[in-house]
Amino acid sequence: MKLYDSRLAPNPRRVRWFMAEKGVEDIEIVLVDFMKGEHKTTEYRAEVGLPVAPALILDDGTAITESLAICRYLEHFYPEPNLLGRDPKETAIIEMWTRRAELLLANPLMLGVRHGHPALAALETQVPEVSQNNIQGAEKALKLFERRLSESEFIGADRLTMADIVAIASLDFARIIRFQVPETAPNVKRWLDAMRARPAAKAGM
Amino acid sequence: MKLYDSRLAPNPRRVRWFMAEKGVEDIEIVLVDFMKGEHKTTEYRAEVGLPVAPALILDDGTAITESLAICRYLEHFYPEPNLLGRDPKETAIIEMWTRRAELLLANPLMLGVRHGHPALAALETQVPEVSQNNIQGAEKALKLFERRLSESEFIGADRLTMADIVAIASLDFARIIRFQVPETAPNVKRWLDAMRARPAAKAGM
Repeated sequence: MKLYDSRLAPNPRRVRWFMAEKGVEDIEIVLVDFMKGEHKTTEYRAEVGLPVAPALILDDGTAITESLAICRYLEHFYPEPNLLGRDPKETAIIEMWTRRAELLLANPLMLGVRHGHPALAALETQVPEVSQNNIQGAEKALKLFERRLSESEFIGADRLTMADIVAIASLDFARIIRFQVPETAPNVKRWLDAMRARPAAKAGM
Repeated sequence: MKLYDSRLAPNPRRVRWFMAEKGVEDIEIVLVDFMKGEHKTTEYRAEVGLPVAPALILDDGTAITESLAICRYLEHFYPEPNLLGRDPKETAIIEMWTRRAELLLANPLMLGVRHGHPALAALETQVPEVSQNNIQGAEKALKLFERRLSESEFIGADRLTMADIVAIASLDFARIIRFQVPETAPNVKRWLDAMRARPAAKAGM
């Protein structure tokens, strides 16, 4: 298997973090430089199907994109430590929180950056209202995560799971537009510090 | 188990459609009227955790929200017909296409409606640019689905899967802002007609 990876963007980092928690080291990593447009070449599109990374290329040539689809595939072959759930109920709760992290934090913050950061003006027709609207949405969503983390050490279960990885990759990425967790969310801050102290936080950084 | 369901919104419809394809009839359905604010009552929030539907309440009281988390849970107990994948590779491909349907069609069209339809002005501080930007994104994404459906009868696999359900629920919902699949996407139109002709298309409508 071969993984097309990319620095800086949050979605490739989810997969790197996921693999680092599991100690996966036998998958070839090929770096793709977005700023140089390496994901937009004819060859890359032909192999992967879309100009995106991460992309996992299976031994039969099948390309899997979408970070969560890649992680679920890897979980099957590298089951420990479990990051997606051990039984139907736990799996459902982890997926619920992973999706909340994605829809309420990761997507809005991604749009906040793409429509708000000067460095991305070349890649995107930026609409300032889109950026502002999304950042406000993420700020509002932090209240939900503060409530959750006041009752639980981690977001998705009583141990680190995919939900935490999606949330931290998003919040770390949003630092480039100076998005900060407010003082009114002390449990999110506590969790943030713990996540940043994990060895996997350094994977590929 | 008990399912909090709601009419009109696209995410509850995914779960209804999923259950209809499987012939699930032994789960109690409780309708929640969003326009009357029934999802915002103190009792509802206390039971479900968030003012959202769908929500599946397990027999032990655990509330699962997020349509895809609910469907994965149900797939375990009602495995046929399989809608999420029979092996790791097929599961990954279906999840990849489900996520593309969600991120490239469903989310943008939802924001297109929420920020663009007069009936929702009471629920949302509407930003016209957010609506337009998202509708344009969905239009662009249809090219990807046209390409896929020119090679495959269904979006996620060689049979109906969750990916088709997410896409059709989104495109049907967007009819309220007169979003239409263009003539330049004949395979999406062919697929759309086939989806709308399925018995499950009527579930709870």
